[in-house]
Amino acid sequence: MSKADSPRQSSAASQDVEARLSRASLGRFSLYLRCVQRLKDEGSRTISSSQLGEALGITDTQIRKDLAYLGNLGHRGVGYPTHDLIKALRSVLGVDRPWSVVLVGLGNLARALLRYRGFSEHGFHVVAAFDVDPAKVGQSVEGIHIHDLAQLPTVVGRTGAELAILAVPAGAAQEVADKLTAAGIHGILNFAPVILRLPSTVHLVSVDLAVQLEQLASLVHHRTHE
Amino acid sequence: MSKADSPRQSSAASQDVEARLSRASLGRFSLYLRCVQRLKDEGSRTISSSQLGEALGITDTQIRKDLAYLGNLGHRGVGYPTHDLIKALRSVLGVDRPWSVVLVGLGNLARALLRYRGFSEHGFHVVAAFDVDPAKVGQSVEGIHIHDLAQLPTVVGRTGAELAILAVPAGAAQEVADKLTAAGIHGILNFAPVILRLPSTVHLVSVDLAVQLEQLASLVHHRTHE
Repeated sequence: MSKADSPRQSSAASQDVEARLSRASLGRFSLYLRCVQRLKDEGSRTISSSQLGEALGITDTQIRKDLAYLGNLGHRGVGYPTHDLIKALRSVLGVDRPWSVVLVGLGNLARALLRYRGFSEHGFHVVAAFDVDPAKVGQSVEGIHIHDLAQLPTVVGRTGAELAILAVPAGAAQEVADKLTAAGIHGILNFAPVILRLPSTVHLVSVDLAVQLEQLASLVHHRTHE
Repeated sequence: MSKADSPRQSSAASQDVEARLSRASLGRFSLYLRCVQRLKDEGSRTISSSQLGEALGITDTQIRKDLAYLGNLGHRGVGYPTHDLIKALRSVLGVDRPWSVVLVGLGNLARALLRYRGFSEHGFHVVAAFDVDPAKVGQSVEGIHIHDLAQLPTVVGRTGAELAILAVPAGAAQEVADKLTAAGIHGILNFAPVILRLPSTVHLVSVDLAVQLEQLASLVHHRTHE
């Protein structure tokens, strides 16, 4: 994607490329990518908007509108070639290139995340880990060196890491998030069960596993008490 | 919550209790609970709707509307007593009682989840684990016995488990989900990166960690390319 003009300067003709995508749109593109990749793995060479819609429970109209954003990929009566669609979706999502990630807080969850192959398969490479515990600093987990948290600015600068996974205890999360921000990190995937305050220049996605389970329990509770 | 009449029979007066809550409402109640608990831990004995709104970025109107659903808890000029609000939120969410959970697929993520204290602190108790690997079956992890997957119906029946955490490889997820459904599980927290097809009687919450990181990267990508 080319460097965009400010919204005030953008013309109607270039708006499709330059308009800022909403979080919801990006969420759907991410779902499409996962679904198309699965169908391609299963042998599909093309996919129709109605196939996508049926698999994901999204209306055909919404899917056509979203995919139109990607350019002229579909062929009438044939659908979208899976290879081209995956390429276009990865490009619009910005995941057609590798991302360097730092991991802060080497508890059990972080150790599991370091062993989780899904990250590197999707182009996310953990380049360094950090902790404050002297017993952990200097060690390696899954080939990743654990640095002292004080080295964060140096290591982020050297590695060019843009994203951070925050897996520290709740009480330390805001302070570490502030340090990540100061070190130049642009996005934080937060596993600590707290609400972080970040400047608007730093993006946040939070995953609270107990909340996910609570959501599930509530859905079951309301279903069984209907 | 009392056993509700069918919607057709419910009167306007009882509608506030009996209306089915949307997934979005339950999501907000869960956020409120987390936020109020934190404020209580920090020493607050009361909380106002505007405090909640400011902390969560939700409009005052929405918060007042949601909290009105809980009954007559607020006092003008004083706000909501945190203790009562927590009790009411836990009740409406159905997490004012313990839930039994089974865990299927004893990879690294599952091992981390078994060590994650957040679940039991919130009343979610893993009562049994399952795997198909003979090297794992019969072992214990964090005090939890690992059963052969073939024993699922027996163990679910005996323990009365209602929820399952699904942490098996993507290729096995649908088959195991079908077995969980057949065994009488009402809700599945799915960590496998696939879209599961379940009957409407079984609720699903999916957590794909690579997708969460992809979402974050996309937000950063679009921010830096605006």
